[in-house]
Amino acid sequence: MKNKITKEDSRLNKLDKSAERIGMGGNLIPNMTEEKYKERMQKRKEVQTQRLKERKKEKGLIIVNTGQGKGKTTAALGMGLRTIGHNHNVAIIQFIKGGWEPGESLAFKIFGDKLKFHACGEGFTWETQDRNRDINLVKSSWRKAVSYIKDPNYKLIILDEIIVAIKLGYIDEDEIINGINLRPELTHIVLTGRGASEKLINSADLVTEMKLIHHPFREQGIKAQEGIEY
Amino acid sequence: MKNKITKEDSRLNKLDKSAERIGMGGNLIPNMTEEKYKERMQKRKEVQTQRLKERKKEKGLIIVNTGQGKGKTTAALGMGLRTIGHNHNVAIIQFIKGGWEPGESLAFKIFGDKLKFHACGEGFTWETQDRNRDINLVKSSWRKAVSYIKDPNYKLIILDEIIVAIKLGYIDEDEIINGINLRPELTHIVLTGRGASEKLINSADLVTEMKLIHHPFREQGIKAQEGIEY
Repeated sequence: MKNKITKEDSRLNKLDKSAERIGMGGNLIPNMTEEKYKERMQKRKEVQTQRLKERKKEKGLIIVNTGQGKGKTTAALGMGLRTIGHNHNVAIIQFIKGGWEPGESLAFKIFGDKLKFHACGEGFTWETQDRNRDINLVKSSWRKAVSYIKDPNYKLIILDEIIVAIKLGYIDEDEIINGINLRPELTHIVLTGRGASEKLINSADLVTEMKLIHHPFREQGIKAQEGIEY
Repeated sequence: MKNKITKEDSRLNKLDKSAERIGMGGNLIPNMTEEKYKERMQKRKEVQTQRLKERKKEKGLIIVNTGQGKGKTTAALGMGLRTIGHNHNVAIIQFIKGGWEPGESLAFKIFGDKLKFHACGEGFTWETQDRNRDINLVKSSWRKAVSYIKDPNYKLIILDEIIVAIKLGYIDEDEIINGINLRPELTHIVLTGRGASEKLINSADLVTEMKLIHHPFREQGIKAQEGIEY
């Protein structure tokens, strides 16, 4: 797979390099004349137009948001918001529930039928204190998720914290990987949670690691706040 | 600053270590009896309750989403969605505009007056091909941003791609850092864009680097898709 470079790929690589060479513009070379600047940006514009032309395939993507940092779930939510903005339906299945009523679910009501939201379970492991119940809830949520995955009426399915459910041993990773491949050609699926395995990463089209750059003293003692954590 | 460890910090550190020692539970030690499991999760629950009690401060945060990966803007949007869910007002100022009508702005209409959205400029540098106009637009957007920052009616201000505007030399970083410090005590501000400087990172309370784990062959030739890129 890694060695198969198509003609199309090499055309795209060339365009990417041209774009890089021309640069982003801006005010970084202030002694460049306006005329010269305009000319350069004109060239960049031509490269951009070519780039857009070359990238013509549409594809339902498997997207993984992982890492120890913040933003895994919130980035998925933002994608949901955009997708609804384009008038498509979105389903969110939350596999590990926090101990509070999330701001998301309050905001979700406004979207009516365009957004389906299912919260699995009743809280963290230390809230339920019952493995078997947790496992059953995760499994039944997964069955629900599969029904949305297969349904061509949904453009985006968010499997929130499903990676944590895998890590806790509540559900089999292969079952998830097989399940997400049942989606229609143009459906996108987002999986979130820290600790994605190599195998899951390799099954995905786009993987982002949210990496926390610590500010320990600034974070200490500050409680979970509305909008930020929930 | 780094050496100042308060009593409160050391209590929090102890609790964090206890939580780590007890673990998250789940199905990872399947030969543990149900009774033993319940007991362990009971202990973890006690630690969690203590943790929540210790973390009691509320504070308006400076949040930076940076890095080469995806999710910087979408995570900020998700935070906006949550904040509105809690019935607060949100303002978004977009400093670098994409070449298309974003799905966000379509979705935003549904929130009415709870969400103010301002798109600065008419597109990337290679669309306008005019540095001076770009600079003026960025500066006028910044003035608008400052008026929202100072307004106690807004709980969250998103300065989208402002870090790119700084990097392009369109606006002075110190001006931004001084400006965000004009916020009321409990207002959160999110700054997004790749290439945050050390100085900006040190001014923030919470910094996340969105790191792209590449899948170059899978991404090649795929066009920008609704909900994913715009």
